[in-house]
Amino acid sequence: MNRLLQDLRIVEISAFVAAPLGGMTMAQMGADVIRIDPIGGGIDYARWPVTRDGASLYWAGLNKAKRSLALALDKPEGREIARAVITAPGAAGGILLTNLPPPRGLDFAALKKARDDLIMLRLVGNRDGSAAVDYTVNAASGFPLVTGQAGAPVNHVLPAWDIAAGLYLATGLLAAERHRSRTGQGQEVVAALSDMMLATLGNLGYIGDVQVNGTARPAIGNDLYGSFGRDFATADGRRVIIIALTRRQWRAIGDATGLRDRLAMIGPMMDVDLDTEAGRYEARDAIGAVLARWCASHTSSEISQAFTDSGVLWGHFQDFLQLVRSDPRCSEANPLFALVDQPGIGRYLMPGLPMDFSAEPRGPTRPAPRLGEHTDAVLAEVLGLSSAEIGRLHDERIVGGPGGR
Amino acid sequence: MNRLLQDLRIVEISAFVAAPLGGMTMAQMGADVIRIDPIGGGIDYARWPVTRDGASLYWAGLNKAKRSLALALDKPEGREIARAVITAPGAAGGILLTNLPPPRGLDFAALKKARDDLIMLRLVGNRDGSAAVDYTVNAASGFPLVTGQAGAPVNHVLPAWDIAAGLYLATGLLAAERHRSRTGQGQEVVAALSDMMLATLGNLGYIGDVQVNGTARPAIGNDLYGSFGRDFATADGRRVIIIALTRRQWRAIGDATGLRDRLAMIGPMMDVDLDTEAGRYEARDAIGAVLARWCASHTSSEISQAFTDSGVLWGHFQDFLQLVRSDPRCSEANPLFALVDQPGIGRYLMPGLPMDFSAEPRGPTRPAPRLGEHTDAVLAEVLGLSSAEIGRLHDERIVGGPGGR
Repeated sequence: MNRLLQDLRIVEISAFVAAPLGGMTMAQMGADVIRIDPIGGGIDYARWPVTRDGASLYWAGLNKAKRSLALALDKPEGREIARAVITAPGAAGGILLTNLPPPRGLDFAALKKARDDLIMLRLVGNRDGSAAVDYTVNAASGFPLVTGQAGAPVNHVLPAWDIAAGLYLATGLLAAERHRSRTGQGQEVVAALSDMMLATLGNLGYIGDVQVNGTARPAIGNDLYGSFGRDFATADGRRVIIIALTRRQWRAIGDATGLRDRLAMIGPMMDVDLDTEAGRYEARDAIGAVLARWCASHTSSEISQAFTDSGVLWGHFQDFLQLVRSDPRCSEANPLFALVDQPGIGRYLMPGLPMDFSAEPRGPTRPAPRLGEHTDAVLAEVLGLSSAEIGRLHDERIVGGPGGR
Repeated sequence: MNRLLQDLRIVEISAFVAAPLGGMTMAQMGADVIRIDPIGGGIDYARWPVTRDGASLYWAGLNKAKRSLALALDKPEGREIARAVITAPGAAGGILLTNLPPPRGLDFAALKKARDDLIMLRLVGNRDGSAAVDYTVNAASGFPLVTGQAGAPVNHVLPAWDIAAGLYLATGLLAAERHRSRTGQGQEVVAALSDMMLATLGNLGYIGDVQVNGTARPAIGNDLYGSFGRDFATADGRRVIIIALTRRQWRAIGDATGLRDRLAMIGPMMDVDLDTEAGRYEARDAIGAVLARWCASHTSSEISQAFTDSGVLWGHFQDFLQLVRSDPRCSEANPLFALVDQPGIGRYLMPGLPMDFSAEPRGPTRPAPRLGEHTDAVLAEVLGLSSAEIGRLHDERIVGGPGGR
C-alpha cells in the first residue's frame, strides 16, 4: 500500500467481492477504510476457499489493509454507532460504500441529516432493486452461451462482473470526493451490477452487432474472434496459446517456427489477405492445422526457446498450482507481492495494489484485520468514546472485539 | 455522461480495451479526453465486431464521448504536436493515459521536461516489459483449466483482465490527480496487465489456497464453488441458474418450488447441515437431482412465476440476441441507454456510464468521434494554432482530419 489517499476515511458495509474490492483498493492507496460487520461476521465471512480450520482465504484476500468494526446491527444502538462513525466530522470523512441493503436508519436520506455532505456509493443488483449477483448477471449476459463450444452454457469462474463493479465504485468514489472537495456537495452514487454487464456488452460492440448487423458473435471455442488466436497441444502434453492481432505478430510466427513459406501458401489457397485480421480469422482452421502439427512435434521448452524474444505473442496454459509454485511473476521476486502473516491463517504470498506510483513508494502489504480488531480504536478515535463507555458497549453486546470479546 | 470531471483534460494514446475503457470512463464523467491515433487509425481501428462496411462497433463502443486527434506519429513534427498537446498548460491538463509503447520523445522523462507536473499512466503487458495481452494473461491465470468440465482449457470470451485494467487505470488516474492537486507533484503510474491478474487471484484467495492448504479449486462445471449454484434445463428447452448463498435464499427455494420437505431429507441423508454453505456444496448433487426434475417439468414462464418475489436467487440464461431483443434492461426503458447516431454506423442503443450520481444528472450519451474529427479544434484550442498553420499541417500530412482529409 502507499499513502496517496491517507487523509480519506471510508466506511464500508459490504459482503462478497464488489464493494470489498472497491474499499480495499482505496485502503491499498492509504485511505482509512473501516469495514463494519455484524458481531460474528457477515454473510461472506466463511466464503470459500477456506483453510482446514474454516478461516476464509477469500475474506482475508478482499479485506486487506482495512480496519474492522464489529457492531450489533440488529440493535438500534449498534446502528446508531454505525451512523455516528459514517457521519463523523472531518473534511475527508463522511463516505459510505455499500453493496448490502441499508440497515434501518442507514439509508442516504437518514445519513444526510447527520452529515449534509455525505457521499454514499451503493451497488444494487438490478436497477429496480431486485436481487442479482455475478452468477445471475452472467447468465443473462450472453457470454456463457459463447464460451467453449456451442451447446450448453459455460459459466465463468472469475467473478468478472463483481470485479468490474468494485473498480467502477472505486472510480466513482474518487470522482464524487473530488466534486465534494471543490463544491462542498455530497451525493448518492447508485450503480446496478446488471448495468455494469450491460454497459460492458455495449462497450465491446455486441449490442451494436445485434442491432446494426442482426447477428451475434458465435461460440468458437478458444479461437479469437475476428483475428487469429488458438490453443495447441505440445509434444510433452502441455498447451500453449498463440495469437496474431497485428501484422508484425503474424509475421513473427512464420519466422520463429520456420513455417513462413508454408503459412504464406494459405493466403492464395483460401483467397484471403493474411496481413489483415479478417483474413487470418477466415483462414484460422488452415493456419491452425499448420501450427498444430508444429506444436505437437515440439516440447513446451522448445517452443519457449523458439518464441522468446521473437515477437510472437503466446503463452503457456498453467493451472493454479503451476502458477503459484513455478511462475516467477507469482513470487516475492515481483514487487507486487509480499509474504504476510494473516492472523488466524498463517504466512503466505499477498498481492498489494497492482499499480506503481512513482511519487508514492509501495509500502508494506497489510493483512486483513481480525473481525472486530479495531472496534475499540475506532470508537475511541472517531467517536471519542471513553474506555468505560466502550466497556459498557462490549458488556451489552452492542459491539464486538476480536475473538468474540 | 455527466460533468463531474469537466475541468480535466486527458490525452490517450491507446488501443484495444484497457486504456480506451479507462479514458472513456473519464470522458463519461465529463473530462475532455483526446485520443491520439495515427492518420488512418491505430491497430484496433478495424477490430471485430464490425459492420458490413467494415466499421468497427468495438472501436465505437470503447471511444464514446472522446475527441479524436489524428497525427503522423511516425514523423518528428507529428510527435512534437502530440508532446505539445499532452504537456499544454492548464491546472487540470498534463495527463497521459497509454497502453502502447511510447513513441520516441513521448516517454515520461521527455514529457516531464516539458511539463514538470505531468501525470502519465502506462499499462504494460508484463512488469519486465515483455508482451502480454488478455488472452495470454488468461492462459497463465489458471482460470481456463477450471472453467467448464475438467480437461481442455476453456478461455473466457469477456476480456475480463483488460476491463479490470481499464478501471484500475481510471482509479489510479483520479488518485494521482488528487495527489497533484494537493501537492503540485505529478508522477508516472505503471501497471502490468499480468499483475492485475495476479492481484485478483490473490484477492480471491486462490494463492492462499495453494500455499496454505496445498490444494487448488477444481473444475466443477457450472457449479458454484463452496455453496449451492447450478444450471438446469426447463421443460421448454431453456436453461436457468439457481443459487443459494445465504440461508434465506436456500429456504426460499424450498418454499417457492414446494420441495421443502424433500430437500430437507437431504441433510440427514448426506449427513450435512444444509443451512451452511459448505453443507449445501457437499450435498450439491443431491440438491441438484431434486431441483433438476422440478425444473424439467416446469416451463420457463412457470419457473419465472414461481420465483418472482419469492426470495429465490435465480436467472435465465439468454444469448446476445435474446438479451438485446427482449430483456427490458437492455432498452431505452433503462436510463443507462440511449439511441445514438454513430457516424459511419447508424443509430443503435448505446450505454452511458453505469453509475448514477445524484449531484450530476446523467446527460446525453455521446457517440465515438470519427477518426480525426477534432484534429483542427484541438490544434486551435489547445495549441492556439492559426487556420493557416493547421492548413499547412494537413497539406504536409502531419495531421489528419475526418475522411482522410
